[in-house]
Amino acid sequence: MTVPVEADVVSVLRLRDRCADALGIDVVEAGAGWAVVSMTVRGDMCNCHGTCHGGIIFTLADTAFGYACNSHNVNTVASAASVEFLHPVPEGATIRARAEQRWARSKSGVYDVVVELDDGTAVALFRGRSHSIGGSVVP
Amino acid sequence: MTVPVEADVVSVLRLRDRCADALGIDVVEAGAGWAVVSMTVRGDMCNCHGTCHGGIIFTLADTAFGYACNSHNVNTVASAASVEFLHPVPEGATIRARAEQRWARSKSGVYDVVVELDDGTAVALFRGRSHSIGGSVVP
Amino acid sequence: MTVPVEADVVSVLRLRDRCADALGIDVVEAGAGWAVVSMTVRGDMCNCHGTCHGGIIFTLADTAFGYACNSHNVNTVASAASVEFLHPVPEGATIRARAEQRWARSKSGVYDVVVELDDGTAVALFRGRSHSIGGSVVP
Amino acid sequence: MTVPVEADVVSVLRLRDRCADALGIDVVEAGAGWAVVSMTVRGDMCNCHGTCHGGIIFTLADTAFGYACNSHNVNTVASAASVEFLHPVPEGATIRARAEQRWARSKSGVYDVVVELDDGTAVALFRGRSHSIGGSVVP
Repeated sequence: MTVPVEADVVSVLRLRDRCADALGIDVVEAGAGWAVVSMTVRGDMCNCHGTCHGGIIFTLADTAFGYACNSHNVNTVASAASVEFLHPVPEGATIRARAEQRWARSKSGVYDVVVELDDGTAVALFRGRSHSIGGSVVP
Repeated sequence: MTVPVEADVVSVLRLRDRCADALGIDVVEAGAGWAVVSMTVRGDMCNCHGTCHGGIIFTLADTAFGYACNSHNVNTVASAASVEFLHPVPEGATIRARAEQRWARSKSGVYDVVVELDDGTAVALFRGRSHSIGGSVVP
Repeated sequence: MTVPVEADVVSVLRLRDRCADALGIDVVEAGAGWAVVSMTVRGDMCNCHGTCHGGIIFTLADTAFGYACNSHNVNTVASAASVEFLHPVPEGATIRARAEQRWARSKSGVYDVVVELDDGTAVALFRGRSHSIGGSVVP
Repeated sequence: MTVPVEADVVSVLRLRDRCADALGIDVVEAGAGWAVVSMTVRGDMCNCHGTCHGGIIFTLADTAFGYACNSHNVNTVASAASVEFLHPVPEGATIRARAEQRWARSKSGVYDVVVELDDGTAVALFRGRSHSIGGSVVP
């Protein structure tokens, strides 16, 4: 029997993630405790100021976080998260979120996510707390 | 000349909000410094665990927050937010987010949002920090 | 055998709390899932701007939170907290922190704390996440 | 006329900081946008569980944050902060907090602080948001 590689677990997570389908989120890279995802901002993701809704930026970061903390192949959910919004994101821009495990013990973990424009401008900093609920992602 | 009523400002905000169109977010009620919005969770809002994506729950809360802090008819954006996820939300459920101003001074404000199921079960607690950038929402 | 009343549990917590001794923190009132504490700001609690150090304001809020979440007589610790600083606190001022349980399930809880001056001016909003580690506070 | 070096600004901040005197906080190193401080946990810093009060760990982190964000010689205060508590800290332990600027623009900044034991074990992760109020720290 083979233990699934972390990047394979993330591929499976992405396949099951209908919200990521709807938002056009792609997995760029992933490994043990980290993941990078990207998305292009469409008009239907924009708020009343005409820029990407903060909730959608959060969703991209949360997606990277979710893939990173489930990459160990134990079902894990977010218990809390915080976000700092640094820069507005215009329609049409492609943004990328990189999640990395900062700490983990027993059932809890802390992950940091940076969301950036193509040119490296940081648009949001996200920190999430995870909680493992048990069971394997990939049997 | 008439000063627009806060509920009218929120109606205008909702009309301009394409992300709220895409997610099917309705304004239930609104006033000076507060707003209530609701949404029904569709399949394309669900994550790999088959429940509503935390980012979409956040987006609903952030929408209520955005309407509440712009209700004073001064353009205002979110500078930061935090969320506690309390309960999973199944596909098909209708959730409601109520945002209320907790504090405001000069250009800054703090708003609390509670997201609940129809039966009153709290599913998320959100706290947002706002920053006014000036200019009127409704001329 | 008698089950200890929540206010009694908080009295015991206060007696064991050397940090509260050092800061002169008094318990004003307490009950099941809530506690009110107060403190007068001394010169040795002030930062380089000459006002009460944010960390000391946080410590007062965290103390109220700790008493509130341990009031159920199960040993409980803070896993995370956030604070919004709203107003500077001058030397000599007496501040009061009121902690209230917002949500609890199994081993986790969320508590909100408001810190105020004597005249009711809010100086900080705190939100803490608790985690029960088991065992009784008062045998 | 000489522009004060950042490390010198931090030395001045430390001299004016009576709370740091009371807690025995030392500046280990500092530069433009960063600072490292340390403290040994005394009995009067401990809570009712017999370990260092979370508020005191926060205060050490907040002190490092305060020195880092004032190192540019513009008076700056904390507007908000969040902390994740990772590990209890026993009486007698020496802990060290390293603050680093993650982002800054106009009057706002975001700083990350890691608090560690001597052996490198992380005990807390802190993120603070700063706001410049103008005026020089050192004339």
